[in-house]
Amino acid sequence: MKKIAVLLSGCGVFDGTEIHEAVLTLLSLSKAGASYQCFAPDMTQLHVVNHLTGEVDTSQTRSVLVESARIARGDIKPTTALDVSQFAGLVIPGGFGAAKNLCNFAINGSECEVNPAVSEFIHAFIAANKPVGFICIAPVMIPRLYGQGACGTIGHDVDTAAAFNLMGGCHQSANVHEIVVDEANKIVSTPAYMLAGNIAEAYSGIEKLVVKVLELAKS
Amino acid sequence: MKKIAVLLSGCGVFDGTEIHEAVLTLLSLSKAGASYQCFAPDMTQLHVVNHLTGEVDTSQTRSVLVESARIARGDIKPTTALDVSQFAGLVIPGGFGAAKNLCNFAINGSECEVNPAVSEFIHAFIAANKPVGFICIAPVMIPRLYGQGACGTIGHDVDTAAAFNLMGGCHQSANVHEIVVDEANKIVSTPAYMLAGNIAEAYSGIEKLVVKVLELAKS
Repeated sequence: MKKIAVLLSGCGVFDGTEIHEAVLTLLSLSKAGASYQCFAPDMTQLHVVNHLTGEVDTSQTRSVLVESARIARGDIKPTTALDVSQFAGLVIPGGFGAAKNLCNFAINGSECEVNPAVSEFIHAFIAANKPVGFICIAPVMIPRLYGQGACGTIGHDVDTAAAFNLMGGCHQSANVHEIVVDEANKIVSTPAYMLAGNIAEAYSGIEKLVVKVLELAKS
Repeated sequence: MKKIAVLLSGCGVFDGTEIHEAVLTLLSLSKAGASYQCFAPDMTQLHVVNHLTGEVDTSQTRSVLVESARIARGDIKPTTALDVSQFAGLVIPGGFGAAKNLCNFAINGSECEVNPAVSEFIHAFIAANKPVGFICIAPVMIPRLYGQGACGTIGHDVDTAAAFNLMGGCHQSANVHEIVVDEANKIVSTPAYMLAGNIAEAYSGIEKLVVKVLELAKS
């Protein structure tokens, strides 16, 4: 049974991992006969957003690792606990947490940097030539992580695609049912809620992404 | 397109809605061609559990409605906003939130009471003869809501089944892939994470439950 790492960034679309995308990733892995282990960086969230009102709640702070544990039903490890030899690949769901906690794209756009602990975690997979799947907004980290010419998709949002290319990436437009594969770098990406009109649409692309990550993990 | 209400109880298995069960319910509805609206009671959670350590965090309080909004991507209404004529049925995912916030079964067992606002919300569906699906531990509310002889399942946990019967219900054992249907009362239930060894198993029963709720909503 192949074991895949899943990197979370909190619990909730506006300040953490997009919950549907994370759960659909876990479902796709389980249905494909793979097992998984969730990870998250042990850091404070950029901020806490009240998901009912959409407003930032400045009265509190929350931990990315502790909140991510909600999606993982308690079974989660800090990124520093990774033994990459135990995993066939990695999947990173989206949500603003990917652009606020894992990197700072939501603040700095094409000038963004990936959090050092997160960068070290993902680079362990890259160095081991293991496939990584990026969902929704998470692909904005691809150019920073893989360097010049690495391919990915964030759907077809013009500004985000331009930022992706400005960072040295090679953006390819895709619809919600499609995945983009960079075979040389073993990168798979799909737009999910960058475009999805409903959860079944998001599932369509995510399921394909997971199948492809597992396929690349075989070779 | 049939529209189904989904009643949430927070965001996280130990103090709120079991996140996987909620998302798998939404996925099943969307795949079956139905739409949904999430609801939650506007109340304070019984407590907040740190899902990394499993310990109660007494330093903070959280709102059931505000945290449930994370699962609903912000699109949620308080239970008091229900217009039952707009909905074909209701589904209630599990997690400890169902036994700590929606009712107090986790504290009082067979002496439990359903929160008044929650009771009023669910009784609107019962009075309109509309089907209700109960997942995981949520079925413990069935005897209190429907009275003597109403049937449901929480899997095959001996103590919980005994409490179900002591409250006047008619418990039927089921495995994770099965649903129990009380046709007369239009009640559907499935064990999900009361028994599931993985997320694909939980999905198996939840998908069947959703299909049956939609079928009962037709007649």
